[in-house]
Amino acid sequence: MLDLAIIGGGPAGLTAGLYATRGGLKNVVMFEKGLLGGQITGSSEIENYPGIAHAVTGMELMEPWPKQCMKFGMKHRMDEVSLVSKDGNIFKVALLGGEVVDAKSVFIATGSTPRRAGIKGEDKFFGKGVSTCATCDGFFYKDKNVAVLGGGNTALEEALHLANICSKVYLIHRRDSFRASPITVKKVRNRENIELILNTNVKEIIGDMMGVTDVIIVDKQNIEKTLNVPGIFVFVGMNVNNKILKQKDGTNLCNLDKNGNIIVDLNMKTSLKGLFAGGDIRIDAPKQVVCAAGDGAIVGIQALEYVNN
Amino acid sequence: MLDLAIIGGGPAGLTAGLYATRGGLKNVVMFEKGLLGGQITGSSEIENYPGIAHAVTGMELMEPWPKQCMKFGMKHRMDEVSLVSKDGNIFKVALLGGEVVDAKSVFIATGSTPRRAGIKGEDKFFGKGVSTCATCDGFFYKDKNVAVLGGGNTALEEALHLANICSKVYLIHRRDSFRASPITVKKVRNRENIELILNTNVKEIIGDMMGVTDVIIVDKQNIEKTLNVPGIFVFVGMNVNNKILKQKDGTNLCNLDKNGNIIVDLNMKTSLKGLFAGGDIRIDAPKQVVCAAGDGAIVGIQALEYVNN
Repeated sequence: MLDLAIIGGGPAGLTAGLYATRGGLKNVVMFEKGLLGGQITGSSEIENYPGIAHAVTGMELMEPWPKQCMKFGMKHRMDEVSLVSKDGNIFKVALLGGEVVDAKSVFIATGSTPRRAGIKGEDKFFGKGVSTCATCDGFFYKDKNVAVLGGGNTALEEALHLANICSKVYLIHRRDSFRASPITVKKVRNRENIELILNTNVKEIIGDMMGVTDVIIVDKQNIEKTLNVPGIFVFVGMNVNNKILKQKDGTNLCNLDKNGNIIVDLNMKTSLKGLFAGGDIRIDAPKQVVCAAGDGAIVGIQALEYVNN
Repeated sequence: MLDLAIIGGGPAGLTAGLYATRGGLKNVVMFEKGLLGGQITGSSEIENYPGIAHAVTGMELMEPWPKQCMKFGMKHRMDEVSLVSKDGNIFKVALLGGEVVDAKSVFIATGSTPRRAGIKGEDKFFGKGVSTCATCDGFFYKDKNVAVLGGGNTALEEALHLANICSKVYLIHRRDSFRASPITVKKVRNRENIELILNTNVKEIIGDMMGVTDVIIVDKQNIEKTLNVPGIFVFVGMNVNNKILKQKDGTNLCNLDKNGNIIVDLNMKTSLKGLFAGGDIRIDAPKQVVCAAGDGAIVGIQALEYVNN
């Protein structure tokens, strides 16, 4: 019987394990079938994790974490969790292979992943000019021109954010109207350095060894045009990694918002006792390493208190 | 007119400045009359800030922060703020010297400070065996005996926390009953490795170059006893640094809980628009560097959005 099962090995899961085991929890296992460190390991440059003296890659940033977070006794299992359920006071963590692990408390830290648009060159230049986070990467394009792809609230809000930093923002959208809220659309239309490019798709992202150099767009009349930009921000939705919460009767193990994010309070408690959530999968997640780590620390402390009671 | 006034130069304030200026806010000033880096700079050993490969002192941990957090344009003023108020949409940040600075948004990151008990040797050995945080320092006393001083909820909860890690916990309280909730008192009484020492004060904390070695206690009959412990945790209340919120009419600028902590939501928004709070002064604060920094990042992002709207 585990004291705490941690699902996900990014900054939130790792930090929760550090705090829980250092605080005295004995049987703490983190389930992560992929690389430890989370999504950020795919980033080519991070300069806003507090305490780093110089910019580093995501791999460099996360390199010391597993050793530090596991040195107080957290175990790592390279297993994929298929379902988390609760039977009385005991959580059942079902693994893909069929095994079911019992746990007194569970931390869901499975994150959410920005969707890719499926454009030629998008994967190749991801992290080298293709980004899904203006807060993270916008500053690298200070006083430069950038492209934004998307028509929803996130795309427009991120375009406004980038317009504060960049010379010019090309906002590319395949339709002639936006799904975003009218007030956000109005703000975008009133912003001098945002140029709307509607009824248009991105055909290809082009670059060299240093990263993106151009974005080829094509309109409804099939006319191609090249935008000379070193960066393109893609906002075409999120995959929230919450499927392990879906019970056999179709309900979710705890309350989610309409986008599938887990509803938590300031202590990262979900609607179900003993079940915690944090990092990118929770509501209002800022999707920053330091914030996910902060959530994890909170869960380590809270899980300790929950299990001891 | 400032875009954002940050009150307090600890991990929360510094990180908020980093995120706000890197996100494009132009006029961001952090007011801190003391040492940058916050309370943690007084700690002798930290091993739970995620990403550090080895244990460091608080000074070492915070050393790179000011440069990193100020390189995107945040300014630092060594002024003490006496009052924050709001006039229409504009915040008024009054400084001790009489100057009043206008700001569009304000971040209260002034922290809260554990009270010292005023015992001989307490200041001398603070951070070298005297602690005010079991989550931070409990692990350093794994399988050792420690003393806890206090009779409130925090003292008893921290004693329970330490009992998971340490061989034995001496809980010293000057009265014969506890102010803590009955359920917590019951848990403490049922815990085999917590020894209650009631009607007793701590007279002196003794140590050598390596830190604390003994605690001298004295009971109501004036009988002295020496506890041979390498650590004592002092929980005699908190000073919440919220006096700058107190308006001339006696009300507070935003809603506080009964202990004086600032009530916030997951976005670190207080009850007053444009006023944010984070770090140790907010409700449910875990009082950990990584959590305070996470709060600061959230405020940087939220203040940017608030000012741009």
